[in-house]
Amino acid sequence: MVEDYSVAYDAVMSEEIPQARLFTAAALTEGAAVEPNPGQAHYLLHVMRLGNGAGVVLFNGSDGDWLTRIEDANKKTCRLAVMSQLRPQISEPDLWLAFAPLKKARTDFIIEKATELGVARLLPVFTEHTNTERVKSERLAGIAIEAAEQCDRLSVPEVADAVKLSILIENWPASRWLLVPDETGGGPPLVDVVAELGNTKTTMSAGFLIGPEGGFSAAELDALGKLPFVRRIGLGPRILRAETAALAVVSCWQALIGDWTSSPRFNNGYVFNARR
Amino acid sequence: MVEDYSVAYDAVMSEEIPQARLFTAAALTEGAAVEPNPGQAHYLLHVMRLGNGAGVVLFNGSDGDWLTRIEDANKKTCRLAVMSQLRPQISEPDLWLAFAPLKKARTDFIIEKATELGVARLLPVFTEHTNTERVKSERLAGIAIEAAEQCDRLSVPEVADAVKLSILIENWPASRWLLVPDETGGGPPLVDVVAELGNTKTTMSAGFLIGPEGGFSAAELDALGKLPFVRRIGLGPRILRAETAALAVVSCWQALIGDWTSSPRFNNGYVFNARR
Repeated sequence: MVEDYSVAYDAVMSEEIPQARLFTAAALTEGAAVEPNPGQAHYLLHVMRLGNGAGVVLFNGSDGDWLTRIEDANKKTCRLAVMSQLRPQISEPDLWLAFAPLKKARTDFIIEKATELGVARLLPVFTEHTNTERVKSERLAGIAIEAAEQCDRLSVPEVADAVKLSILIENWPASRWLLVPDETGGGPPLVDVVAELGNTKTTMSAGFLIGPEGGFSAAELDALGKLPFVRRIGLGPRILRAETAALAVVSCWQALIGDWTSSPRFNNGYVFNARR
Repeated sequence: MVEDYSVAYDAVMSEEIPQARLFTAAALTEGAAVEPNPGQAHYLLHVMRLGNGAGVVLFNGSDGDWLTRIEDANKKTCRLAVMSQLRPQISEPDLWLAFAPLKKARTDFIIEKATELGVARLLPVFTEHTNTERVKSERLAGIAIEAAEQCDRLSVPEVADAVKLSILIENWPASRWLLVPDETGGGPPLVDVVAELGNTKTTMSAGFLIGPEGGFSAAELDALGKLPFVRRIGLGPRILRAETAALAVVSCWQALIGDWTSSPRFNNGYVFNARR
């Protein structure tokens, strides 16, 4: 995977491969033509100032990266002729991140960083101490798309509709660990828990749950503690802000058993994105 | 250390222990009196609306956390009478983070998060592709103090004056690894490098170097590659933004061999903060 990346990176950095990279819902095959949406057309034609013949990379989360060329450009629209595949689709860790929404900038930050760090699914969740009452999942999905475009990721994480914690728990798959940073410092170290889970022979995947700035309520902690798929984890002696904890746990997961390793140990938790 | 923290956290969360926590340069011993600076006095008296008798936690990076009480409050000033120690000073990992300054908000972000994550020393460094020409280390030090106050950290990281990369390298201690994320994807996985360094019998400490958004120049990479204390590290298949990479590597370090573990393996890299 690292080698794939290296090749792709070199290609993108070379002059032949365009800097503009966009996500599309369209199928990508040689000879296809894709119509960028109005925002994308504006970006290509007026922000990047590209014209007919200029290259643009497209990805759709299942067909890999494709080189396309601008055709029929006018002031407001253009068409992208799909030329050749630059990178095949690769599998990605199936890691979920549930989080209590924070103030706007810090929520946006979680979405951007979690996308860069390879989270497969983002689940905003309302808790007793969550101050935010509304979450625009569509706006968050837009941030995820932009981050995926920029970081050369071949898929875009799904942003689920925000639900109450009780609903999240009710619908949480029994075959997926739910790892909850314990801000009282009582949980075993993250690295120990991940090693333990990585060594079990069960086929469980995993997700993290990050509480709000005010922490979980006693009732919430009680409810979480009773679930067989919940594991508390410790993140050291300092009290991390929610968004710091979110990034930290995802980074560590990728480094320890995710796609930052040369041979991911948590294979059972992997999904192949193609045609999902 | 985790137990210390748990006790301290419970204490801070109980009603007896005040929520206001401030850094001071003054020595902290029972019976001492500390004069808050004008900004701190404003914060205590007008933002937190505290008056005579109210409790405030003080720390100075060497004497632990102390309970103090407000005395002689008037509109603009007050005095803090030092009562009793809440937490003794504890040792912290001696991890450095050198980084090319980014746009203001993203640099501030690195400082805040690196402080929460326990970096001992922050070193802004100018590289060929760094767009920022000036760094106000004093302003950054202020952000570090605020973050340390909020995250219950017992010390404040030092913010070094910004220097050119050539100077940083010239002055880098030969007994400290310099770990450089390799955005071409060529470096071995972070977890492998950290494990290797943690297992060596040398007494080297460590630091990370995060390049600018544009990456290092070929000449810079060449110069870095020739240094015996430099190790490249890989951070997976996505291209991380500089500030994401900074947080990710520090998180992983703490989780793997720093103070998020139950028994830090990199003991030789530890400093005891008291009276340093």
